[in-house]
Amino acid sequence: MRVNGKPCRAVGWHGETGAVEWVEQRLLPHQFNQVSSRRPEDVAFAIESMQVRGAPSIGATAAYGLALAWQENEEDFFSHWLPRFRATRPTAINLFHACDAMQLCAEESPTTTQMIERAQAYADAEVAANQRMGETMAELLAVGERRILTHCNAGWLAAVDWGTATSGIYQLAKAGEKPFVWVDETRPRLQGARLTAWELNQEGIDCRIQADGAAAWMMAQGKVDAIVVGADRIAANGDVANKIGTYALSLAAKEHGVPMYVAAPGSTFDTACPTGKDIPIEQRDDDEICRMDGLDEAGESHDIRIAAAAVRANNPAFDVTPNANLTGIVSENGIWSV
Amino acid sequence: MRVNGKPCRAVGWHGETGAVEWVEQRLLPHQFNQVSSRRPEDVAFAIESMQVRGAPSIGATAAYGLALAWQENEEDFFSHWLPRFRATRPTAINLFHACDAMQLCAEESPTTTQMIERAQAYADAEVAANQRMGETMAELLAVGERRILTHCNAGWLAAVDWGTATSGIYQLAKAGEKPFVWVDETRPRLQGARLTAWELNQEGIDCRIQADGAAAWMMAQGKVDAIVVGADRIAANGDVANKIGTYALSLAAKEHGVPMYVAAPGSTFDTACPTGKDIPIEQRDDDEICRMDGLDEAGESHDIRIAAAAVRANNPAFDVTPNANLTGIVSENGIWSV
Repeated sequence: MRVNGKPCRAVGWHGETGAVEWVEQRLLPHQFNQVSSRRPEDVAFAIESMQVRGAPSIGATAAYGLALAWQENEEDFFSHWLPRFRATRPTAINLFHACDAMQLCAEESPTTTQMIERAQAYADAEVAANQRMGETMAELLAVGERRILTHCNAGWLAAVDWGTATSGIYQLAKAGEKPFVWVDETRPRLQGARLTAWELNQEGIDCRIQADGAAAWMMAQGKVDAIVVGADRIAANGDVANKIGTYALSLAAKEHGVPMYVAAPGSTFDTACPTGKDIPIEQRDDDEICRMDGLDEAGESHDIRIAAAAVRANNPAFDVTPNANLTGIVSENGIWSV
Repeated sequence: MRVNGKPCRAVGWHGETGAVEWVEQRLLPHQFNQVSSRRPEDVAFAIESMQVRGAPSIGATAAYGLALAWQENEEDFFSHWLPRFRATRPTAINLFHACDAMQLCAEESPTTTQMIERAQAYADAEVAANQRMGETMAELLAVGERRILTHCNAGWLAAVDWGTATSGIYQLAKAGEKPFVWVDETRPRLQGARLTAWELNQEGIDCRIQADGAAAWMMAQGKVDAIVVGADRIAANGDVANKIGTYALSLAAKEHGVPMYVAAPGSTFDTACPTGKDIPIEQRDDDEICRMDGLDEAGESHDIRIAAAAVRANNPAFDVTPNANLTGIVSENGIWSV
C-alpha cells in the first residue's frame, strides 16, 4: 500500500541493488524508515530484533534473507543459514513455512537467480492470498454505510501488502467506495492507534481511533456496520485466538447484531488444536501496561511510567472468541465454516 | 483512608491552623501532596483547576471554602463568594447542594464557628453516606472468592473518604476479609491505573491493573466474582451513565452471570431525567486519546504523543448502561430498584 503517496511493501527485493528492503517497524508511527541490506545476517537480525513484525511479513523476510545467503556462500546455506533463520523467532509458523520452501528449492542446486525468484514467489503468494481474502471481505462489507470497526493491526505492515483484516477495507476503497474505520487503539501496545491508523491515513481512508472500551457503546448507538479483525491462531472448531479485547468485541457484536468477521490466511488454522481451550494464552510483562513511550513536542522520545508506582498488572496478550460469536472466517480460500 | 499508613481525607478542616487542607490530585499517583490554605480564593481555585476532583469531594471543598469566606468578610459572602464558588465547575450537582447548604446556614447570621461546623457536618454526612453504602455493598460482596472488578475511580479521593464503589471493598478489608481487585486501567485518562490502584495499594489491598479489553476475558475464565462501579448520573428508570467502558463490562457480566453493582450516593439520581437516552454524553478532546503524561526513569515528567501523527480520535467520555444489565444500585439508603 502507499506511504507518502508511493507504493510500499513491508518487505521486498530491490532489484537494482540486489538487496532486501524492509520497513523499520519499531520506529513507526513516529518515523518511517526503509532499511536495505545485501548481508543475510542483517536480515536475520531484522527479524530477531522485531524491525519486521507480523507472521506473513516475517516469513517473506526470511525467504529473501535465505536467497541472499545462497548468493553469498552456497556451502554455508544448510549448515549455518537455515538454522540461523529458523531460530530468529520462536512462534511464527510462517517463518518455518518460508524456511522449508527455500530449503526445498536449494536442494535442487538452483542458480542465485532461481533462489531469488523463489523468495519473490513466496512473498507474492502471500500478497495474492491477502488480495483474494480482501476481495471476499469487500463483498461481505459492501452493505450499509460501511462503517467498519477493527482491533489491533492486521494490516499490510504485518502481511507484506494489503494486510489481512485491512485488505477488505483497502479493496473497498480501491473500488471507489468510501469506507470509514473505527480503530480500537488496542491496549496495551496500541497497535491500532500506532500502526493501523497510520496505514489508513497513508491510504487516505477516513478513520478515528478510540479507547477499546468505547467500541460496545458505538455499536449500541448503531454506528458500526461490521467488525473485521485478524487472528493469531484458529482452532479446528473455529475458535479464534486474537489480541486481548477481541472477545469483548464479539459479545457487543452479538448483542447488537453487528456482523463480525475474522480475516486470516490458511496458515493461521491449526487443525492440531481441537478447540479454543487448547490454545495457550501468553501472559506478558507488567511494563506493557504500566509504561508508555512516545514523542514530546520537541520530537524527543521518552519512555514514561503511566501507572501508579509499585502497582502490578494482569497482562494476558490474547483472548479466545468462540466460533459461535463470529459471523464468518475469511481466508484466501473463501469463507470458512466449521 | 490511609496514605503512607496515616488516615487521610481528600479534603478536610485542619483545626489547629484553621485552614482547609486537600490532596493535590493532579500530581497523583506520582506525587502525594496535601495543600492547605486559609484563603477562600485558593480553595475556589483548587476546585476550578481540578486539584480536587470527584463530585462529593468538590461539594465538601466548596462548603469549607465558604466557611473561610464567612470568617474573612461576612459582607462579601452573598455578593461575591457564593457566586464565585457556584461558578467553579459547571456540572457537579454536589457543588450546588453544598453552596445551598452554606447559604441557608449563613442566612441565620451564624458565628464563624457555626459556619465551620456546618461545613464539617456537610463533609461528615458525605463520609457517613459512603460508609453506609459500603456496608450494604460489603454484604452483597461477601460471597465466593471476593475477586472484585472495578472501572475508573469511584474511590475516596473522589468522595472525601471511603469512596463509593470502593467503600464496600474497604469495608470487607476492615472486617478482616481479603478482597482482591481487578482494576480496569480505564482509558483514556487511566483513573483506574493511577488513582484506584494507588488507593488500594496504600490500603494494602491486593490488586492488578489490566487493559480494559481484558475484563470480559477474565470473566469468561471465571476469575471475577462481582463488579462494582460508580455513576456520574442515574436516570429515573435506573439507567446509569458512567465512564466509557462500563457498558461493555455490563454485556460481559450478563453473558457470564457475574453480578454487577453500581454504588452511588442519592445525589447522583436525577429524577428529572426519564431514561438513559436523555443523558447527554460529553465528547472530549482528541488529546486524551493521542497523548499521555508520566514520569521517566529519572523522575522527570513528560507529555508525549502516543498515537500516529495527524490521526484523529473518537472520545466519548461516558456511556449508558441499561438498568436491565445491572444486578443492583446501592446508595446510602440501601439497594435501589426501579
